[in-house]
Amino acid sequence: MVPHLTTALTGPLLDLERRFLENISAIEQWLRSQWLEHSPPFYSSVDLRNAGFKLAPVDTNLFPGGFNNLNPDLLPLCVQAAMSAVEKLCPEAKSLLLVPENHTRNQFYLTNVARLASILRLTGLNVRIGSLLPEITAPTPVSLPDGQTLLLEPLRRLGPEGRRLGLDDFSPCAILLNNDLSSGVPEILQNVHEQWVIPPLHAGWHMRRKSRHFLAYREVAEDFARHLDIDPWLINPDFGVCGQIDFHARTGEECLAANVDMLLTRIRTKYKEYNIQSRPFVIVKADAGTYGMGIMTVHDASEVKGLNRRQRNKMAVGKEGLQVSEVIIQEGVPTVETVNEGTAEPVVYMIDRYVVGGFYRVNTDRGIDENLNAPGMHFSPLAFETGCSLPDTAQAPDAPPNRFYAYGVVARLALLAASLELERSAPADEA
Amino acid sequence: MVPHLTTALTGPLLDLERRFLENISAIEQWLRSQWLEHSPPFYSSVDLRNAGFKLAPVDTNLFPGGFNNLNPDLLPLCVQAAMSAVEKLCPEAKSLLLVPENHTRNQFYLTNVARLASILRLTGLNVRIGSLLPEITAPTPVSLPDGQTLLLEPLRRLGPEGRRLGLDDFSPCAILLNNDLSSGVPEILQNVHEQWVIPPLHAGWHMRRKSRHFLAYREVAEDFARHLDIDPWLINPDFGVCGQIDFHARTGEECLAANVDMLLTRIRTKYKEYNIQSRPFVIVKADAGTYGMGIMTVHDASEVKGLNRRQRNKMAVGKEGLQVSEVIIQEGVPTVETVNEGTAEPVVYMIDRYVVGGFYRVNTDRGIDENLNAPGMHFSPLAFETGCSLPDTAQAPDAPPNRFYAYGVVARLALLAASLELERSAPADEA
Repeated sequence: MVPHLTTALTGPLLDLERRFLENISAIEQWLRSQWLEHSPPFYSSVDLRNAGFKLAPVDTNLFPGGFNNLNPDLLPLCVQAAMSAVEKLCPEAKSLLLVPENHTRNQFYLTNVARLASILRLTGLNVRIGSLLPEITAPTPVSLPDGQTLLLEPLRRLGPEGRRLGLDDFSPCAILLNNDLSSGVPEILQNVHEQWVIPPLHAGWHMRRKSRHFLAYREVAEDFARHLDIDPWLINPDFGVCGQIDFHARTGEECLAANVDMLLTRIRTKYKEYNIQSRPFVIVKADAGTYGMGIMTVHDASEVKGLNRRQRNKMAVGKEGLQVSEVIIQEGVPTVETVNEGTAEPVVYMIDRYVVGGFYRVNTDRGIDENLNAPGMHFSPLAFETGCSLPDTAQAPDAPPNRFYAYGVVARLALLAASLELERSAPADEA
Repeated sequence: MVPHLTTALTGPLLDLERRFLENISAIEQWLRSQWLEHSPPFYSSVDLRNAGFKLAPVDTNLFPGGFNNLNPDLLPLCVQAAMSAVEKLCPEAKSLLLVPENHTRNQFYLTNVARLASILRLTGLNVRIGSLLPEITAPTPVSLPDGQTLLLEPLRRLGPEGRRLGLDDFSPCAILLNNDLSSGVPEILQNVHEQWVIPPLHAGWHMRRKSRHFLAYREVAEDFARHLDIDPWLINPDFGVCGQIDFHARTGEECLAANVDMLLTRIRTKYKEYNIQSRPFVIVKADAGTYGMGIMTVHDASEVKGLNRRQRNKMAVGKEGLQVSEVIIQEGVPTVETVNEGTAEPVVYMIDRYVVGGFYRVNTDRGIDENLNAPGMHFSPLAFETGCSLPDTAQAPDAPPNRFYAYGVVARLALLAASLELERSAPADEA
């Protein structure tokens, strides 16, 4: 099921990885001290890009799918980390309701839901799956490609005044969202105060902004970099924001072009400083939402002026048909990693503060400066062969356990940024 | 390095394993609720015996050696569990002093120390090793069979009035004992109040008694069995104690014979109840201490009366030449497991509340009713192929992941018993 990975590790040796390797104790201590002050989200996945000269997160997902893509050998790590997370968040919980995305026909996604449910069951929770889909009006078994069956059940409000969320005959202690709430919080999920909702509702994309995440990440990266005496740019993707774009009406184009230009100038300066020969580029994408929609690679400000109708349409629409009006302009980090000649980027998975695995997202149809999370295109996950917690100083910095360790470090910095972001965006009554 | 294990799993199908498998949620919930009230020791290993009709712990070690015998694939589990343990016990710790046993020539043991140090280093601690051996007067590198070098350094008292324990230029936050203190607490380890000592000194064999452990275990087993509606005898080894034996002077022989007889009678009743054809036996061993010394298999009370000089000498002397005067008479649990025709018993390792792996202790020269932890004899550890946290209800109860799950459950019951035992034996000023 999971082919072994070797070819992804063909990048130039990263000084950064060596630096991490020499400072394992300092890094782990620093992280531990951070977790004394900040609580990590229940789970997350972080998309990384390794440019050889730079290793940075480009997206942090607080409702991770893809647990089915992790190396099954690392499953005990998931169970152990989930035990620790449950113990901290809701130690008395006996039952948990998992609320997935509304993708009934995406078998890969449903296999992820099944995997997640089985991890949670192994921590001792009774887990059932509550669907937001209007067509699920009774318990509905769905067959999965691996022969398993997933039972989707209709969500119900329960108890006096419908204060609790559950299923028929099931009033759970905790509700785990695997739905990123891109279209807002469905009514049935609102005003749930007697049960644990994990992660909190304000972690949804109706509230989250990538720019707020990367603002928090910049702080984390600068603090960490000071601690390790490295240039924070080596782990931090620079960015700008435009808050009032209307791609259809062509308003905000100037803001976009100005930001693209400013960012490209800053990148060029850094490339000169480090004698990097690559051509600088930026990624323009929706500030809210995910799923690789509405994403553009830009090498020059002129490219965002006078977009044709097709390009504007593509940029204007995010997940579930939502209009995009706020965009983030993010420094493009080329990826040097390839798997079987396909461009590859690592995705690291975490439960609580623990890295539990990861995989390579591989896209043979895309270049090193393009978004690889492209729906409908060929994309093959390739599980990390080993964990991210066993660096081996006796080996070269780019040996798999060491490169994976570096990935795990940067991913945990993004996790810490997400903690700060959620603290700051919490509504007054949840703070 | 670690051969795959299949042949050990030849025992009769255990109803108990099926029962565990059907109650994973209830078991994990029950354990979680217990950990809300009791703190597990930092680490431990539990020797189990699987009789086919009964699965029980026979020894619980709070200073486990043998980490080097675990499947290296499960190392990330050790690191993650150790992170969790460190975070709870001493979150601000940056440096840790590991105090091992005084076995300079036992390369297997020293390889365990090196493995343990490397697990702890990966959690972000600066780890150094402080030796109690008088001949270690300066930092002394010791070469290990795997090519590594272990640096043993002389322990020092530091600071005003020598209140702290450390090494030259090393004043650690925490001290981890991997020395079971069989001969008492060495002076240099006494009165350390400014640093974390893990596990606490009263976990040493100078204070511990197996009988107190198994008394606590009996409570745990009865509570758990009630919860699962099973007969506690299925997981609980019955026992008796004699507190005033002098094997040389032949005093206490009557107490021993009476206890042996009483216990054999109780076992016979149980065997009759379950229609078990095996011949009942008991194990007589020192109530304090470990290392498989001074252990006798007894099938009839007459065997402990009129012991010859050789037998008495053997029983009278424990680890480090200590006199044995208190003995526990424990129900013998035959082992049905074999590996390559050698008699085998599982040993399960835990860090904090997490099962992190295990192995089979295999002794081709010993019978199914004998102690297998016999120094000097052929004994080959065989790592568990998979973890103990991934039971698979789709497979038979005796499939490896399920059998290992059952082992992990019973081992955690012994861990819980150790928590109770340590709570109860804590000196007033530590309680």
